[in-house]
Amino acid sequence: MTKGPAERSVVRRPGGRAARVRARILAATTELVARDGIAGFRYEEVAELAGVHKTSVYRNWPDRATLVKEALLRFGEDMASLAETGELRRDLVDFLVALADGLATPTGRALALVAQSGHESAEVRRTVDAILAHRVVAVQRRVDRAVEQGELPPVDGYFFGELLCGPMYLHVLRGPRPFTREDAERITDVVLAGVRATGR
Amino acid sequence: MTKGPAERSVVRRPGGRAARVRARILAATTELVARDGIAGFRYEEVAELAGVHKTSVYRNWPDRATLVKEALLRFGEDMASLAETGELRRDLVDFLVALADGLATPTGRALALVAQSGHESAEVRRTVDAILAHRVVAVQRRVDRAVEQGELPPVDGYFFGELLCGPMYLHVLRGPRPFTREDAERITDVVLAGVRATGR
Repeated sequence: MTKGPAERSVVRRPGGRAARVRARILAATTELVARDGIAGFRYEEVAELAGVHKTSVYRNWPDRATLVKEALLRFGEDMASLAETGELRRDLVDFLVALADGLATPTGRALALVAQSGHESAEVRRTVDAILAHRVVAVQRRVDRAVEQGELPPVDGYFFGELLCGPMYLHVLRGPRPFTREDAERITDVVLAGVRATGR
Repeated sequence: MTKGPAERSVVRRPGGRAARVRARILAATTELVARDGIAGFRYEEVAELAGVHKTSVYRNWPDRATLVKEALLRFGEDMASLAETGELRRDLVDFLVALADGLATPTGRALALVAQSGHESAEVRRTVDAILAHRVVAVQRRVDRAVEQGELPPVDGYFFGELLCGPMYLHVLRGPRPFTREDAERITDVVLAGVRATGR
């Protein structure tokens, strides 16, 4: 819950030295975007926070917009990974917990605000949409698979995603206490039972 | 969906001339807060938008913070009214549709952002919390009544409110198309069926 995006990305993605440097730069960018906004950060700060030389940032991302976009996409991807262990309930609960953890970080909160403000540029809007699309596609794919396997009646994956994620968003962004795994289980259970009972 | 808060309040609350003037002033204040933020509007603008003399505003609300607070509370109250017609499903669907309509207005959207930004003053924060509390209490009261009457198994009204409102919030704030009554019905049906099936 308190782990920063830098730590998350580095932990999750093994690879060579170049890959690790890239991951650190992207994570640092995400943190600075969350703190200062899309237009507010400087390449020097990214380099310092990532612990790399400034030229590493410039060489990999000569274009600032591309850097921001890749950083946010990476963050969104990490946040919305949905495993297929074969056990639907567990996969959904894990997904919801990971999403809540990501959303509770300053970056996640900033992204949620950008997504809703409607005041940002078209470019930013497209990036945020792409991040949200990751989440939607992840849920849809998992739900489609469950439908195929007869674990769920035919259901619109997008609608299912709203049913599952909506209560968690409200809780994380406004609730009086932190979101727990138990909360994720309660929501998942009601949604699964409701979709099965109504057959949609 | 496109009706402004001014119109909503005036339509919904009958009363004498003084009450109508107050309602118009509060509705105008809400609109200006949505446009310019809590600290951005001037009393002159409120008077102009409400079509009243400036002294009517000063006389009724010498204190600016009180004016903002009452305006937002009134807006929140109108937005989150939950009738008891005796038919649970219909009451919940009506509530969800009204909340979605309110949230889709510029004021509703602005309030949602303030509620989540966490950057505002403690005073603003308390006001927004009070508005959200209206909604929560409305759902809790209706759900408690349904439990008493055996229409629902014992369920935590706060949790129920998150299940019901969360998907609608996501849809209104981020969805690709407007929220419809059919959406409200689908959500309500799944939540009712899920709560009944899981017995919580």
